[in-house]
Amino acid sequence: MSNKIKKPFLLINEAITNANISKMCSRAKKHKLDLRPHMKTSQSEVIGEWFRHHGITKIAVSSLSMATYFSQHDWKDIQVAFPFNINEIELANELASNIKLSVLIDHPDTLSFLKTNIEFDVNVWVEIDTGYGRSGILNDNINRIHGILQGIKESKKLHFFGFLTHAGHNYHVTDVEQIKAIHLDAIGKLSKLKKTFQDFNPLVSIGDTPSCSTQSDFTSVDEIRPGNFVFYDIMQEFIGSCDIKDIAVAVACPIVARYSSRLEVVVYGGGVHLSKEYILNGDKKVFGLAVELDKNLKWDAEKPIGLVTSLSQEHGIVFIKEEVFKDLAIGDKIGIIPVHSCMTANLLMGIERKEKDYLVV
Amino acid sequence: MSNKIKKPFLLINEAITNANISKMCSRAKKHKLDLRPHMKTSQSEVIGEWFRHHGITKIAVSSLSMATYFSQHDWKDIQVAFPFNINEIELANELASNIKLSVLIDHPDTLSFLKTNIEFDVNVWVEIDTGYGRSGILNDNINRIHGILQGIKESKKLHFFGFLTHAGHNYHVTDVEQIKAIHLDAIGKLSKLKKTFQDFNPLVSIGDTPSCSTQSDFTSVDEIRPGNFVFYDIMQEFIGSCDIKDIAVAVACPIVARYSSRLEVVVYGGGVHLSKEYILNGDKKVFGLAVELDKNLKWDAEKPIGLVTSLSQEHGIVFIKEEVFKDLAIGDKIGIIPVHSCMTANLLMGIERKEKDYLVV
Repeated sequence: MSNKIKKPFLLINEAITNANISKMCSRAKKHKLDLRPHMKTSQSEVIGEWFRHHGITKIAVSSLSMATYFSQHDWKDIQVAFPFNINEIELANELASNIKLSVLIDHPDTLSFLKTNIEFDVNVWVEIDTGYGRSGILNDNINRIHGILQGIKESKKLHFFGFLTHAGHNYHVTDVEQIKAIHLDAIGKLSKLKKTFQDFNPLVSIGDTPSCSTQSDFTSVDEIRPGNFVFYDIMQEFIGSCDIKDIAVAVACPIVARYSSRLEVVVYGGGVHLSKEYILNGDKKVFGLAVELDKNLKWDAEKPIGLVTSLSQEHGIVFIKEEVFKDLAIGDKIGIIPVHSCMTANLLMGIERKEKDYLVV
Repeated sequence: MSNKIKKPFLLINEAITNANISKMCSRAKKHKLDLRPHMKTSQSEVIGEWFRHHGITKIAVSSLSMATYFSQHDWKDIQVAFPFNINEIELANELASNIKLSVLIDHPDTLSFLKTNIEFDVNVWVEIDTGYGRSGILNDNINRIHGILQGIKESKKLHFFGFLTHAGHNYHVTDVEQIKAIHLDAIGKLSKLKKTFQDFNPLVSIGDTPSCSTQSDFTSVDEIRPGNFVFYDIMQEFIGSCDIKDIAVAVACPIVARYSSRLEVVVYGGGVHLSKEYILNGDKKVFGLAVELDKNLKWDAEKPIGLVTSLSQEHGIVFIKEEVFKDLAIGDKIGIIPVHSCMTANLLMGIERKEKDYLVV
C-alpha cells in the first residue's frame, strides 16, 4: 500500500474518523442538540457520506463555493457559517432555489441588500460576538440586534432562525478549565439574548470544537456545528479538546535527505502541503509530529519519532529521535501529524483541487 | 473590472512584474550570469511566457509535478531544485526522455538509486549547504562530495553539472548588510569548492532572491535561480530585497463585515487564500498590508490603508486607518499585499488548482 505514495498524501484513518463522528453524535444526542457538522475541515463528499451513515442531514460550510460543492453531492440543508458576501448574490440565489440555504447576517447593510436581492426563501442566523472579536454583533448591542430582527421580519424571503456564535478565542487556550470559562460565558450571553428576544423564537447555534468536545452544560443551545473534531490535530490536543490518539490524519511524506550529524531528515512535505501553522514548544515552533507508518499506512500517535522544526515551500525538516534515526532511509515514507488539519486538508484535498491527494486507511 | 471579482482573487500587476523580470535580466547580464528563474513562485505558464519574452529559456522548479506542468508548456530545460525523490523515478524517466532535466543530489543513497534506475540522460547538481542547514552536503565535507562526484562520473546517464546552494538563511535577516555577509560567505565557500574540484569542471548556481536582488559580487557564480523576485512581497521588502513599490501582487478581498468601534473590517480572504505567513511588527503579527483598489484594480503600495492582524480559514481581520474607515462599505473590495507571495500564489493559482483565481491588471 505504501508504494502507492510517491509524494505528500493525506492519510485518513477511517476507524478513528468514524469514532470521532460517533462520539460527537452521542454527545449531541445526550444533550438534546442538533448536530450540524462544519464541513470546512475535510471539504469532502466522501467524509460527508460517513456523516450521513451516522444520520446527519444538515451541514455547515464556510463559503458559497463549498455550499455549491455539497449541494452537488445531495446535501439539502446547508448553512454558510460566514458573514454573507453580497458579491455572490447570484450564486446564493441559485443555491436557494435548490436547497434549504441558511446564511449569516451581522450588519444592517447586508440585510438591506439581501431584502432587495434575494429571490428565494433563505433562513437567516444573526451572528453574535460573545468575545472572540472576529465577526458578529456584540451581544450587548441590543439596539442593533433588534433592528436587524425587525428588518428580517419585514422581508418575505428571509426567515429568522436564531443567534449563532463562534467562540474562536477557545483556540488560544491550553486546558479544559479555560475552555469551560469561555464556553459558559458565551452560553450565558446567548441565553440572555434568547430571553430578550423570545418573541422572535430564536434558536442558538454554537460552533467551536473545544467546547463541543469537552463541555457538558449546553443551556439554551439548540445546535452545535463543530468541524475540526472529525480529524482533530496537534492544536486541538494542545488545547485539550482531544487525546493524541483521536487524531485521524497524518501526511505521508517521502524522505529525500538525511543528516546523521543533525539527526534530521528532510521530507518532501512543506508549507504547501501541511500549511505553516505551528504550536510553540517552549520558544520553539513545531509544525507537526513525525510518526512511523506501518505497511497499512497506519501510525501510533502515542509513539512519535520526531518533530517538524521548519517548513519551506516543499521541504520539511524533521528532528528525529536518536534511536529511530538509523532505521530511516532515503525514500522511506514517514507520517506527519498536522498542527491544523483544516488547513492541511484544504491543501491536499480542498474543493479547488483537480486531484485529491488523500488515501483512506 | 472590479465587478468580475466575487471572491478572493490574486491581482497580478503586469507592468510591475515585467519590470522585476527586466531588472533581474539586466543584473544577470551585467554580472555575466545565466538566469534560470525559479517558477515555484507563480507556478504559471502565463508568467512563463512573460519570462520567454525576456529571452529566458531555462527554469527551475521545486517538484517533478511542476516540471511536468512546465514541460507540457514547452519548456525544454528544467532543473528540479529539490533533493531528488526516488519514489518518483518513473516520472523522472518520463521527463528525462522528453526534456533536458536536471536534478539535485546530496546523498550517496540517492546517487546509487539513480545510477541503477535512471534510463535517460540527466544533468546532476550536487547540493551544498553553506550554512542554511536545510538540505545539501556541508561545504567542508570534502570526502562525501568527492565520493559523489566520482560516483556520477562512473554513471553513463548522469552528468555532473555543478554545485548548487540556497542561502535560505537570507530570509531571516532585516537589512542589506546582513544579506551581503551571508552572500559573501556562501560564494566564498563555493569558490573554494570550485577550485578544489576543478578537474570536474563544476558550475556554481545560487538561488536566493535577497542576494540576487541586491548583491554585486558574484565571483565564481555561473547561474542564479531566484524565484520570489518576480512578484516580491512584504517579507522581501522587510528583508531589504525590494522596495514596497516593486511588489507585483495583491489579493482582492470583498469586505463582508465592518465594525466602527474597532476600526476593523472582516474580509473574505483567510489562511486558505493568503497563507498564514506573517511578519512581526514589534510583537504583533502582520499577515498582509491593506490597500485601496482603483477601478482598474490597481493599487498604491506606498499608501497602505491598514494591516491584516488576524487570519482564520476564510476570514481576515483588517485594522483600517481612521480617516479611510468611513469610506469602506460592505461589499467593497480592498487589496491585501501578501507577506509571502509564493505561498499565496500556490493557494490561488497553483498547478494543483482546477480554476486559477487570478487576474492580470
